Amino acid sequence: MKIKYELIHEEKHTKARRGMIHTNYGTVQTPMFMPVGTLATVKTLSPEEVKEVGSGVILSNTYHLWLRPGEDIVSKAGGLHRFMNYDGPILTDSGGFQVFSLAKNKKKDIEEEGVHFKSHLDGKRLFLTPEKSIEIQNKLDSDIAMSFDECPPASASYEYLKNSVERTLRWAKRGKEAHKNENQSLFGIVQGGAYEDLRKYSAIETVKMDFDGYSIGGVANDHESKEDMYKAIDYSIPYLPTDKPRYLMGIGEPIDIIEGVIRGVDMFDCVLPTRIARHGNAFTRYGKINIKNAKYKEDFTPIEEKCDCYACKHYTKAYIRHLITSNETFGARLLSIHNIRFLIKLTEELREAIENDNILEYRKDFIEKYTKNEKK
Amino acid sequence: MKIKYELIHEEKHTKARRGMIHTNYGTVQTPMFMPVGTLATVKTLSPEEVKEVGSGVILSNTYHLWLRPGEDIVSKAGGLHRFMNYDGPILTDSGGFQVFSLAKNKKKDIEEEGVHFKSHLDGKRLFLTPEKSIEIQNKLDSDIAMSFDECPPASASYEYLKNSVERTLRWAKRGKEAHKNENQSLFGIVQGGAYEDLRKYSAIETVKMDFDGYSIGGVANDHESKEDMYKAIDYSIPYLPTDKPRYLMGIGEPIDIIEGVIRGVDMFDCVLPTRIARHGNAFTRYGKINIKNAKYKEDFTPIEEKCDCYACKHYTKAYIRHLITSNETFGARLLSIHNIRFLIKLTEELREAIENDNILEYRKDFIEKYTKNEKK
Repeated sequence: MKIKYELIHEEKHTKARRGMIHTNYGTVQTPMFMPVGTLATVKTLSPEEVKEVGSGVILSNTYHLWLRPGEDIVSKAGGLHRFMNYDGPILTDSGGFQVFSLAKNKKKDIEEEGVHFKSHLDGKRLFLTPEKSIEIQNKLDSDIAMSFDECPPASASYEYLKNSVERTLRWAKRGKEAHKNENQSLFGIVQGGAYEDLRKYSAIETVKMDFDGYSIGGVANDHESKEDMYKAIDYSIPYLPTDKPRYLMGIGEPIDIIEGVIRGVDMFDCVLPTRIARHGNAFTRYGKINIKNAKYKEDFTPIEEKCDCYACKHYTKAYIRHLITSNETFGARLLSIHNIRFLIKLTEELREAIENDNILEYRKDFIEKYTKNEKK
Repeated sequence: MKIKYELIHEEKHTKARRGMIHTNYGTVQTPMFMPVGTLATVKTLSPEEVKEVGSGVILSNTYHLWLRPGEDIVSKAGGLHRFMNYDGPILTDSGGFQVFSLAKNKKKDIEEEGVHFKSHLDGKRLFLTPEKSIEIQNKLDSDIAMSFDECPPASASYEYLKNSVERTLRWAKRGKEAHKNENQSLFGIVQGGAYEDLRKYSAIETVKMDFDGYSIGGVANDHESKEDMYKAIDYSIPYLPTDKPRYLMGIGEPIDIIEGVIRGVDMFDCVLPTRIARHGNAFTRYGKINIKNAKYKEDFTPIEEKCDCYACKHYTKAYIRHLITSNETFGARLLSIHNIRFLIKLTEELREAIENDNILEYRKDFIEKYTKNEKK
């Protein structure tokens, strides 16, 4: 079965919307944050822990699984769900972003057929095409697949972006034709940088192809400004159908999630909560903290007093600090649980704010607290 | 409350015995294998996972906790149980073994008062004495503490060992006098290498001091032979009281556990199951396997079909191999769960064999299978 988006409520004062997505693995609530399980594992966590923090959909990376263990092994295992023992919905990206950001020395050769590049692992020559990306995703048997797109750098010129949008449309069409998995939905990706006409054109033409959902791409580049990200969303959303989910790819900063939701986005993903965890960082209502800070040495309170996550219910900052400074992986695990729970709790609160038509007040309160310590 | 050992049954044909230890944190069964949580965490596992595999007592290392985070922080947290959120019994070693094996460049200066050595972390000069070891363990508030002993190398001469036994006895006495924690039991340690007269003398003199339990030390050195280990046990056990537990320190190879139990040992500990897990090794009934082996690439069966652990119930060798070869910590976690469960299941079966008076048959069957592939 393909996924089905159900709109529940549109917030009165903004474009924010409350919905549900019906999938082969149950119904999930939107807006949602999707934890990333790059290599068929959300780093340091078990599938049970991923579910316990309230995850709806998780994301896995086609490029990484293509290289290790290879899509054929995942397929022989019975697909990604069985391979990794996860019985919730899984979304796979197309590999496009990784090809453009991870390729060895970032050297790549883009041609109409696809992209030549070298593996970030061993420098092996690789060639990824729209058809190949879809074929891999079909074999991985995720619930939602992404079209293979070109991800130009934030610095790209208008001319470059224009050509890139055209190519992404041709690649989307080829991918859609190659798509064979009846139980897998396929999303189209809107590109076009921060240019209104390009985003509009990209959105309208992508929607014409009738995908099961739409992604807004090109916003998670290293040097993308917040303003350009908001423009990319604002210029794309009006042309996307209301009966399909909208997914802002690679975004996970709390304030960006709020801004995205207010602009009409339903889905977000990011490696941020698990990546910063491994460096000892934790989200709190008053901004990020680094647990390695000496002031937490004898702090026998949880990361956040009111947090309902496993880490906050059972462990102190002093203990987690000890684990992180001693390179004990249980520390990264506890911080990962907390950080993912933080973002998912945020989306739960955003859903409630949408239902109550007070998301602008919610944003004001949240940002005031979250940036309080920065302002000092 | 001090621990209390209760003898349930003595096996008919050997010295093996089935017992229970009553502790402040519940009653645990012997013979038992104790997982090691060096730095107040059993590497990669949560306390819940440690309990789920059937652990009775866990072990934590005084030397490591002294260095990081420091015993005062653990004490301020309310002791080791509260610091690490573990509500089962905890045993701490004395730091002696680490001082002799981990000290920077293994340089140390042993004098009657204690041992001067350098931290393995930063080379800082440290001085550990019997009183200091006990003071740290008192503060850690473990349920069972160890006396500070000298751990001579396997190559030490008779003369050296003789002096070392004498010094260990004097240190045991000093430690016992310094011991203040009424809720903590204290074990004496028998040394003496593989010499019958030294082990006998060490055991008799240590028992005279009336400890809450007795350890057999000096058997986990790198170059210790199996024969010398069995001798060390055989020469010590006859002089230990039947109403106190006997603990063979640092031993965790399956066959060594069986041999120890048959010789009258109740408690074992070792980093082996978690250490080999991090290198991709798993215990099986047919010997150790390395999951990184290419033959497991498409092996969609569990590590062991009949194993009741979380890893074997939900994951395949192909998936765990993928995690380990990709450096995903969830792989080490799954193998750690399996390996600890393997050793604990082994002790469960040994208890049953003792009750049924057929431990010699059990040993024969186990070793036959376990060494089958080696013999080929």
